[in-house]
Amino acid sequence: MHEPIPDQPELEVDRLLAEGDAAALGAFFAALPPGEVQRALDSLPADDRVRAIALLDPVQAAGLVDRLPDVHAVDLVERLDPGTAATIVQELPSDEQADLLNELDDEDAEAILAVMPPELAQETRALAQYPADVAGGLMITEYLAFSDRDRVQDVIDDMRSNAERYRNYDVQYAYVIDSNDMLIGVLRLRDLLLARKADVVRDIMIQTPLSVSDSDTLDQVHDVFEGVSYFGIPVIDEERRLVGVVRRSAVERAMGDRTEGMYLKSQGIVGGEELRSMQLLTRSRRRLAWLSINVILNLVAASIIALYQDTLAAVLALAVFLPIISDMSGCSGNQAVAVSMRELTLGLIRPSELYRVWIKEISVGLLNGLALGLLLASVAWLWKGNPFLGLVVGAAMAINTMIAVSIGGAIPLILRRLKLDPALASGPILTTVTDMCGFFLLLSIASALLPLIT
Amino acid sequence: MHEPIPDQPELEVDRLLAEGDAAALGAFFAALPPGEVQRALDSLPADDRVRAIALLDPVQAAGLVDRLPDVHAVDLVERLDPGTAATIVQELPSDEQADLLNELDDEDAEAILAVMPPELAQETRALAQYPADVAGGLMITEYLAFSDRDRVQDVIDDMRSNAERYRNYDVQYAYVIDSNDMLIGVLRLRDLLLARKADVVRDIMIQTPLSVSDSDTLDQVHDVFEGVSYFGIPVIDEERRLVGVVRRSAVERAMGDRTEGMYLKSQGIVGGEELRSMQLLTRSRRRLAWLSINVILNLVAASIIALYQDTLAAVLALAVFLPIISDMSGCSGNQAVAVSMRELTLGLIRPSELYRVWIKEISVGLLNGLALGLLLASVAWLWKGNPFLGLVVGAAMAINTMIAVSIGGAIPLILRRLKLDPALASGPILTTVTDMCGFFLLLSIASALLPLIT
Repeated sequence: MHEPIPDQPELEVDRLLAEGDAAALGAFFAALPPGEVQRALDSLPADDRVRAIALLDPVQAAGLVDRLPDVHAVDLVERLDPGTAATIVQELPSDEQADLLNELDDEDAEAILAVMPPELAQETRALAQYPADVAGGLMITEYLAFSDRDRVQDVIDDMRSNAERYRNYDVQYAYVIDSNDMLIGVLRLRDLLLARKADVVRDIMIQTPLSVSDSDTLDQVHDVFEGVSYFGIPVIDEERRLVGVVRRSAVERAMGDRTEGMYLKSQGIVGGEELRSMQLLTRSRRRLAWLSINVILNLVAASIIALYQDTLAAVLALAVFLPIISDMSGCSGNQAVAVSMRELTLGLIRPSELYRVWIKEISVGLLNGLALGLLLASVAWLWKGNPFLGLVVGAAMAINTMIAVSIGGAIPLILRRLKLDPALASGPILTTVTDMCGFFLLLSIASALLPLIT
Repeated sequence: MHEPIPDQPELEVDRLLAEGDAAALGAFFAALPPGEVQRALDSLPADDRVRAIALLDPVQAAGLVDRLPDVHAVDLVERLDPGTAATIVQELPSDEQADLLNELDDEDAEAILAVMPPELAQETRALAQYPADVAGGLMITEYLAFSDRDRVQDVIDDMRSNAERYRNYDVQYAYVIDSNDMLIGVLRLRDLLLARKADVVRDIMIQTPLSVSDSDTLDQVHDVFEGVSYFGIPVIDEERRLVGVVRRSAVERAMGDRTEGMYLKSQGIVGGEELRSMQLLTRSRRRLAWLSINVILNLVAASIIALYQDTLAAVLALAVFLPIISDMSGCSGNQAVAVSMRELTLGLIRPSELYRVWIKEISVGLLNGLALGLLLASVAWLWKGNPFLGLVVGAAMAINTMIAVSIGGAIPLILRRLKLDPALASGPILTTVTDMCGFFLLLSIASALLPLIT
């Protein structure tokens, strides 16, 4: 079906770059199967990526830049000269333009804006004011708008004469504005098709259309889309002026990106995106920032163990159970964290509903604590032939599971209430607290029952 | 802006259910702010949810069912009588119909299909054949298709007479089929607007349109969308017959859902979706299934410690470092897992590129292992005043970090190659292997240098 996929596309790109053959390079990328384009770009050394993009025509270059992971796109645009960068940036969809410029150094962004056509630069600057996760940051400004006093024939004439510009617009709907640019209606293209040419737009439009405010959050916009079947919803500013259109697909993508960020953070990738094609030292440094916080928290938690050296010396078997209790409490707690994160995302719990979550989690914690405690107790008893050792280990496991599950369920809500990022901080807080509690429980119960277990 | 949000919507629903007032109940749900609908439905006892949905008119009921998390939607449809269920299911978008029926017990699904209009039942049955993550499972069958020999006037007449049915269709494009139902063109609505009424569709359509095959995977379809700006792409079967349309928003949503599944699995929520409104025993049992595998793996790993009781007895301080090395190796390894999962998702690495990943990870592992090893060595040295204890602890931490990072980077690729789910299994495999290695390294190096550290 497809052309044979070059196994090392970077070699072919190298050859075409050496020849400076822009047309052949363009044809090479155009011929790559869709799934291979990112891989090919990622496998190029950063300098070659810049040279290749600069050689291509701006429309194709923008198409490729749009597909790069953010970290590569930013790096690339920063390395291009502002003139070339500007011609490429102009070809990106408006929301991508704004996102990209937001992530550049101010100096680089200004250099690019300075060489863009003033009107476009101003528009991009306005879009770049919005945070990426509100309607204004998600919207595009490529939409059709007509005056309420236009006739159907005027609309058709406009579409005919701007056919080229409208090519990539979503023209299922056109928006109707009054003389103050205020959104007052929506025109379905199919109604236009069924109307008479002399009809006035105001008479065939749908009045008081659904809209979102440019400051509405991603969650709010997502909720609005959940209730309707539209592909796009107009965005208005605080004066009800039409400023853009937010598309369902952009909202779904932003939700997916947020979930991805949640996954990466929960796994300790917290310094921003990491790709293996990035600099070794950057990757190492970013991962270490996270690891060094964790190692300090670990030392704090483990210092509990040092307080009980006599108990440990008397019952060495406890040393085997310390890491097990630490690890299992982490597992139980993380399950509760994940359920809370999900219910927060779905809007099923409010950050204030700590008590409800706690009640729900403590019951699961009780059951699972009993089960895990009994299992671990049996292992300890069978291993050392001492039922009291089983009791000590089992009790510590059971109680600590309950603690871990309660804390795990609650932490994301508390962090959200404190306006902190629950995906980032839940894990380390959870493991530190549950490690400390677990070590303390096992060793203090063992100390109390020491005569029975030695 | 909004009506005051009832703090306990379930009480209001209870009241309306007791009165059996369908209209008031419909008005109640219609008046809820979009973000509150899910919360209200989730907070209802399962029986009340069924009674409420059954009381509403099918269109509104379908709108609500569509917004329920899958686990609740399935439970609800199973509890409804097949007749009511069928009237509601018919109002869902076709892809949702198929997904829902796929998740029901066969018996329940058949009961519902039996009371649906035969033609619709057959269509739904056909859609339900597709796995959820291929183009056929993602597509909808609500689209416009016209014969290549139709005239523009015929198309407009059809749209006029079917206006009601087409209301929720995405009619930016209509598809053109020949007499064998084969897809041969695409008709942009705006071209229709600009055409003469006597023009034949074949002459104004875009020929050889982009399409995807019904068996293309989610990743393949996503790749195709990445390269173009369309909102929908037609889906053809192996005979090139038009069978549906896959929308960009559906693809983005499915990608997001997959990432969410990856997050939940990585945190130990593996038995399927969990919501706190589910039965306590179900929640407990599902979480325990995962925990009990982990506790066994933990016991296996910790049994290494039991082999070195003499060393531990001689240097009790080692017991403090065992959980630290276990936990930190988990952290380092999970970072590498996350980067591999992400690069696999982005299509930047192939499962066969183990060597490249290993080289990239071992260099990060070397740097971070040195950093963490030095840190831990200093702590041990300062604490006990013995440089050799520092050496033992630091060496074990450094080597085990390298091991954890190499294994973490490689596991997802290996599991993918074995057609296993890397999100599910990477975590437990990683922690078991790194715990075993870590315990062994610390205790065996300590044993070898025992005279120096006692």
